[in-house]
Amino acid sequence: MTQTIQPYATISSIISPEGSLEVLSQHEVNRLQSTSQNGLHDLLRRCALAVLNCGRPTDDSVAILEAYKDFDIEVLQQDRGIRLKLTNAPAEAFVDGQMIRGIREHLSSIIRDIVYVYNEIQQHNRFDLNTGEGTTNAVFHILRKAGTLKPGRDPSLVVCWGGHSISREEYEYSKDVGYHLGLRDLDICTGCGPGAMKGPMKGANVAHAKQRRKDGRYLGISEPGIIAAEAPNPIVNELVVMPDIEKRLEAFVRLGHGIIVFPGGVGTAEEILYLLGILLHPGNSEIPFPLIFTGPADSAAYFQKIDEFLVYTLGEEIRQYYTIITGDPVAVARKMREGINTIREFRRHQQDAFYYNWRLTIAREFQAPFEPTHEAMRGLALHRQQPKHELAANLRRAFSGIVAGNVKEQGIRAIEAHGPFVLTAEPLLMQRLDELLSSFVAQGRMKLDGQPYTPCYVLK
Amino acid sequence: MTQTIQPYATISSIISPEGSLEVLSQHEVNRLQSTSQNGLHDLLRRCALAVLNCGRPTDDSVAILEAYKDFDIEVLQQDRGIRLKLTNAPAEAFVDGQMIRGIREHLSSIIRDIVYVYNEIQQHNRFDLNTGEGTTNAVFHILRKAGTLKPGRDPSLVVCWGGHSISREEYEYSKDVGYHLGLRDLDICTGCGPGAMKGPMKGANVAHAKQRRKDGRYLGISEPGIIAAEAPNPIVNELVVMPDIEKRLEAFVRLGHGIIVFPGGVGTAEEILYLLGILLHPGNSEIPFPLIFTGPADSAAYFQKIDEFLVYTLGEEIRQYYTIITGDPVAVARKMREGINTIREFRRHQQDAFYYNWRLTIAREFQAPFEPTHEAMRGLALHRQQPKHELAANLRRAFSGIVAGNVKEQGIRAIEAHGPFVLTAEPLLMQRLDELLSSFVAQGRMKLDGQPYTPCYVLK
Amino acid sequence: MTQTIQPYATISSIISPEGSLEVLSQHEVNRLQSTSQNGLHDLLRRCALAVLNCGRPTDDSVAILEAYKDFDIEVLQQDRGIRLKLTNAPAEAFVDGQMIRGIREHLSSIIRDIVYVYNEIQQHNRFDLNTGEGTTNAVFHILRKAGTLKPGRDPSLVVCWGGHSISREEYEYSKDVGYHLGLRDLDICTGCGPGAMKGPMKGANVAHAKQRRKDGRYLGISEPGIIAAEAPNPIVNELVVMPDIEKRLEAFVRLGHGIIVFPGGVGTAEEILYLLGILLHPGNSEIPFPLIFTGPADSAAYFQKIDEFLVYTLGEEIRQYYTIITGDPVAVARKMREGINTIREFRRHQQDAFYYNWRLTIAREFQAPFEPTHEAMRGLALHRQQPKHELAANLRRAFSGIVAGNVKEQGIRAIEAHGPFVLTAEPLLMQRLDELLSSFVAQGRMKLDGQPYTPCYVLK
Amino acid sequence: MTQTIQPYATISSIISPEGSLEVLSQHEVNRLQSTSQNGLHDLLRRCALAVLNCGRPTDDSVAILEAYKDFDIEVLQQDRGIRLKLTNAPAEAFVDGQMIRGIREHLSSIIRDIVYVYNEIQQHNRFDLNTGEGTTNAVFHILRKAGTLKPGRDPSLVVCWGGHSISREEYEYSKDVGYHLGLRDLDICTGCGPGAMKGPMKGANVAHAKQRRKDGRYLGISEPGIIAAEAPNPIVNELVVMPDIEKRLEAFVRLGHGIIVFPGGVGTAEEILYLLGILLHPGNSEIPFPLIFTGPADSAAYFQKIDEFLVYTLGEEIRQYYTIITGDPVAVARKMREGINTIREFRRHQQDAFYYNWRLTIAREFQAPFEPTHEAMRGLALHRQQPKHELAANLRRAFSGIVAGNVKEQGIRAIEAHGPFVLTAEPLLMQRLDELLSSFVAQGRMKLDGQPYTPCYVLK
Repeated sequence: MTQTIQPYATISSIISPEGSLEVLSQHEVNRLQSTSQNGLHDLLRRCALAVLNCGRPTDDSVAILEAYKDFDIEVLQQDRGIRLKLTNAPAEAFVDGQMIRGIREHLSSIIRDIVYVYNEIQQHNRFDLNTGEGTTNAVFHILRKAGTLKPGRDPSLVVCWGGHSISREEYEYSKDVGYHLGLRDLDICTGCGPGAMKGPMKGANVAHAKQRRKDGRYLGISEPGIIAAEAPNPIVNELVVMPDIEKRLEAFVRLGHGIIVFPGGVGTAEEILYLLGILLHPGNSEIPFPLIFTGPADSAAYFQKIDEFLVYTLGEEIRQYYTIITGDPVAVARKMREGINTIREFRRHQQDAFYYNWRLTIAREFQAPFEPTHEAMRGLALHRQQPKHELAANLRRAFSGIVAGNVKEQGIRAIEAHGPFVLTAEPLLMQRLDELLSSFVAQGRMKLDGQPYTPCYVLK
Repeated sequence: MTQTIQPYATISSIISPEGSLEVLSQHEVNRLQSTSQNGLHDLLRRCALAVLNCGRPTDDSVAILEAYKDFDIEVLQQDRGIRLKLTNAPAEAFVDGQMIRGIREHLSSIIRDIVYVYNEIQQHNRFDLNTGEGTTNAVFHILRKAGTLKPGRDPSLVVCWGGHSISREEYEYSKDVGYHLGLRDLDICTGCGPGAMKGPMKGANVAHAKQRRKDGRYLGISEPGIIAAEAPNPIVNELVVMPDIEKRLEAFVRLGHGIIVFPGGVGTAEEILYLLGILLHPGNSEIPFPLIFTGPADSAAYFQKIDEFLVYTLGEEIRQYYTIITGDPVAVARKMREGINTIREFRRHQQDAFYYNWRLTIAREFQAPFEPTHEAMRGLALHRQQPKHELAANLRRAFSGIVAGNVKEQGIRAIEAHGPFVLTAEPLLMQRLDELLSSFVAQGRMKLDGQPYTPCYVLK
Repeated sequence: MTQTIQPYATISSIISPEGSLEVLSQHEVNRLQSTSQNGLHDLLRRCALAVLNCGRPTDDSVAILEAYKDFDIEVLQQDRGIRLKLTNAPAEAFVDGQMIRGIREHLSSIIRDIVYVYNEIQQHNRFDLNTGEGTTNAVFHILRKAGTLKPGRDPSLVVCWGGHSISREEYEYSKDVGYHLGLRDLDICTGCGPGAMKGPMKGANVAHAKQRRKDGRYLGISEPGIIAAEAPNPIVNELVVMPDIEKRLEAFVRLGHGIIVFPGGVGTAEEILYLLGILLHPGNSEIPFPLIFTGPADSAAYFQKIDEFLVYTLGEEIRQYYTIITGDPVAVARKMREGINTIREFRRHQQDAFYYNWRLTIAREFQAPFEPTHEAMRGLALHRQQPKHELAANLRRAFSGIVAGNVKEQGIRAIEAHGPFVLTAEPLLMQRLDELLSSFVAQGRMKLDGQPYTPCYVLK
Repeated sequence: MTQTIQPYATISSIISPEGSLEVLSQHEVNRLQSTSQNGLHDLLRRCALAVLNCGRPTDDSVAILEAYKDFDIEVLQQDRGIRLKLTNAPAEAFVDGQMIRGIREHLSSIIRDIVYVYNEIQQHNRFDLNTGEGTTNAVFHILRKAGTLKPGRDPSLVVCWGGHSISREEYEYSKDVGYHLGLRDLDICTGCGPGAMKGPMKGANVAHAKQRRKDGRYLGISEPGIIAAEAPNPIVNELVVMPDIEKRLEAFVRLGHGIIVFPGGVGTAEEILYLLGILLHPGNSEIPFPLIFTGPADSAAYFQKIDEFLVYTLGEEIRQYYTIITGDPVAVARKMREGINTIREFRRHQQDAFYYNWRLTIAREFQAPFEPTHEAMRGLALHRQQPKHELAANLRRAFSGIVAGNVKEQGIRAIEAHGPFVLTAEPLLMQRLDELLSSFVAQGRMKLDGQPYTPCYVLK
């Protein structure tokens, strides 16, 4: 059942975009305004609302849209460039009537990405998205357009994954890790949103202030389905909206120079399986990729459970791909710094670009968008009689579907209409899966709202 | 007959690009390397050579290519981004073995434009170049990609047209005008090359130093056919290579906030007819467009001749579109400053963009590329029994063809193969045309080399 | 009794200064090295140690000096400028062997101030420090040299006073206030150190990141006697070391555009009395000066006690100079923003400088350095039979002496040698004073170390 | 006889200073306003007029002062800092009513230097100017205050000396040399003024634009007596006004990393003798100091004459200190670049500062100010029966006096009152001197005005 949000005050205002939004052609402005089938207005409106609503702690996309039914955004062309006319926008985005500058930048970013993705990627078939090469090329072009590929800069980007609904202690720990990464001149990339996606950025921000690192990067990578549930914190100073979840995941692994996983729920499990499924690919066996699972001291049991599940599903050798460290932020930061130094030497030696990991092979089953319908969820092959990376891919899809059922607009509406997703697995795997998911529920990692959690899935 | 250039020393070196060249995808690098039919290597090589040869005073594209037969350029992908490997490059581009930084920026610019124009404009049919809207949109996108559309900046861009082969006195005068424009915080845009395309930039550069205008713009707009004959001076700090002469002309009139015409030859006459043909369009009658013809005091006779030719071909009322000022750089600068102030108010009032003149109507005959074959030249309708803007368009084409025959690779080779172009006009017009062209020849405005000029055309 | 600090690891290293340290003459370098009577080496060593020890939570100057007996600093002259050679420096100032850049800047700042103050102010008698004008001029010159007087910048500097030893709740509250000040483009100035001197900076730093305020100011003003006990947090991006406590206080009130007082102990009481004593001066009656006392909701009782003490000692009308707000950081920030807008208008109207409050009259008794010997403390006239601003001045001195006895090297050593200071006051005032001081003790506001507090004073 | 200048239009205006003028104290503003004996108003007025008059080609200080009798300048204190109120200022400093920004910066520089020199150096006896150490220290402090000592920057400063009254060809040659120095990332320092002091800066400015050297330095070092006759061109982006001619010369040799001498008159001869006199000091024998005499091809005879005079007066071995190159700007630039590379290695090896040549010994006779009264001039010992560096020092003084008689206010007035200076030398030296001076007269190197030159000296 959807949460109800009381809309507090709203504000209507005309603002200037900030940052990376370049000038638009008349045709581009028209498409952003168009409410027709091919028009982009509805998409723009939903993403803009997500960005403006960042002050409010909710992860329920539907509730947000209903709370701000009257919200609208219009793109105006004026003498010095584009202006944005906002009607009934969430007041939290403003301070004494002025929009927070970081949020203005985010509005610019979503317009830039919507215009580019829909005009250049989707409408014109420049890239054959049915092939791996075409997809990887499209991801490259979107990221380049967004200015995230910075030549001449040493590897420094640490992707932080983990739950949006975590305990205070886990949050403080993620801040501490971010702080010690920041002291070592490392930057943070997350999927936007609260919890483990926000903590490391806040910590790194303090450390960068102490290190006078003026160009510290706080990169947030989102997609239209998740952005409302995981709104970018205004500290995010580079925001990219990828067209779907799979391209978002590809962006993480091609941009990031190392990955840290904090405790989380199904979304985090999805990310872990995505990455390990890729690293298992024989073509990637020689490529270094620093990966650390970490949390406060008493998260040791949590990671033990994850570790067991991974060993059960992907085999003992999976352990060589990750290190588990608990309760020691300095050790995490040092190990990541060393790992990234290794990446730098490896790429230099291979003449590989620092800013995009072209060398990584991503199998087709990790690139093709998975749409979590009831039918697709029911049809997932969840058993160990298949190659490991295929099982990883299917588990990834199962978790992805549960995320959608929990927090995404389409997923929530599908569950409302047709009841929970049905997942089927071979008995032993089913049991492990049940344990893992139940532990996420028990630890409150599924949803933010603090209500008793009604699962959007049943295991049969 | 083609001039012979002694190749002086050459240098082979690997350099880092500077400035606006962003990262390239592997596919883009491959196309730049490809020598196949669809490959871009030959185009890249020719444009790169033009840019590198800027220290040498010649306007003969064929001679340059032959002088540096062994020159080659290769794009390499490395850890921090792209590198350019140059083999047997003109030594003038280097100082004690280091390439001049402005030239490195120009190399980046041509790669950026070649990649963009050929991948996004020409290969993918994103824009219907058979329509006015599609063409104008393509011009907009190329200029945007090049970073020339700067939102938030007041109108300040003065396009300077005029001959590349002019007298010392005319050159000094163009510097003076540039100096007084620069003192008034105006920027310079030209077609690159020596003479009247270089003088105003040099003058403005001194004035900008005195005014501490650190972000002064020296914008050069070229196209692959002309760039070798009119290489960008390294003072040019923004270089754009448009795909053809008509889009280059459209770029001038949509970007520029005012135009100054110095004495010149057929190329300048082409530009004047292009602009006046457009301003004559009824749809443009309300649009202010500052246009000044100027030169040193003793160029008064020259401009009188131009003026008479324009009145004869386009009618008495054509005079309302331009002002002739001779021998007074300060008056020119003041009038241009006032004119640009008017533009600012007009656009503000109309909510028009400062950075791109969308409002200007450009008829199809001024947009469609004209290829000056012997047949096309012979077929031009040069008589007064047609609407004035059509006559202007045809005269523009005639002059354009003569420019090609004088200095462009294709044109020179065509003349070598088939003899001079034949132009036919109604008798009185023929006579006027003959006078005008003869005066250009007599004044040495056709070619740089100082040899007696052999016309590439005959009037019959 | 002095606390014992276990020296952890130390590091020896040669570093480059960062930031505002300009080049030094050979004579200046020599004086910094000299350990003779007139030499500055000991002062440099003590201040440098304070800055380097910022990672350690202590306020006991003597303990720090003893813990790092072997620490030394040497100034070297090299080709590109000055280098600093550190021996046995606190390891906390380094991350993986590299000094934190913010701390390097602080080292530069203290050298700059020591060189300037001692060479130009103290050695050369440029300013007659026995006069008000000379003193105010000297304060101006030190602040100008440090680059803190920024012409062309709107008033934005909020001085935050309050205790270094405060509760977690009070600390979080001070962060919240800083956050909401930062969202309103206000900057923070404190006396350096932990607690209420650090919280507002941390909060403002997050807000400035959200507002993309790249040039946010975190100004710390210290003096050699207090810097060890209240080391600047590396977020401080402008550090000034004034020569003594009275000039430090004058710097606060001449630089700050408004002042916020958080809960604190005797140091805070000293600051309140200093400021109110000045505002009571008839010459200052027309000058606006925003002053807010604030803390979390349950600090209401605390401020009531302060309020009563002030009314008792300075009269009912003293209330017109301050506003008490508890538990509402947004209201504090809004009121301060309004107050500073008033300052801006007032100064504009009076043609007063934004960056230095020349207009404020500071009576001699608030400028003359007070040295808290046992004799001087005993002799303080603490009774109401004197003008109010004189009583304020004497109370200020009494509190200042207690601060010295608690945390300053000289004060601690004097108490160790001669027992507690004796303070005498008229009976009713004595009773009020006793209540106030006892409440500071009871609330743990005197010292950081968590030991039972042994007063450094007796009231007789 | 003093030239008469027609005052053209003047402008009265209030302007904001630009650049290096920091905030001023009330006391400093008052002294600048004061017209009393100790006041600085007259000095400020004269220097300001010199700076504002830069558009006018004259070197006659008296004539300028008389042409602008009504000019005045006032320093105002306002909310955002200092404003300057100008009354009847030369209109050439303005473009359409706005002062050229470079000139505004120069006004700030002269105020900064007047305030600093007169308040800190002259009034307070911080430095004992009767000693070498005190003088060198004072020079260091003035240059540091002006921001000319830039730590962290590689040696790059080429001092260019030469005449202000030179031929067009010599001027163009000096531009060419500057151009080729600029291409090699070298910066220019001159004494301000036209001719050889302006050419190299203009050339380097073009080269720096091509090399995108945004922080190119054009350093002008003047003194109050000469600034009116040799006004800084607005390209000068760092202006320092030293208190007298000797400190100005010391500034050149301690700041510059190499020196180029173009053809000039007595002022240039003064500079050559100053430098060679210093280099002859035994204490300087190991210190590299690149020194090149250069001019267009037909200046070979000129330099031969200088060379002969130097060999006659200072001996054959003097030739080891300089290289003569004529007609080859590239060779000059290459040799200087190599010389400066040597300086860099030398200083690195010696741990010497890049930004100030402390190591150079300057004997007292080159530091003590020489006041060219009629008596002092007559008393100069001009014979070869003294150590060479003493003869160099006396010849330097003789030339210095002639410069004063030609172009400085005091000197001109003294000659008007008492007739020409009388110089006495031993016969052979007298003859050489006469030849040298006569050649300067014959070549028009004495004065700018184009009138027949009346010598301000007689040789007896």
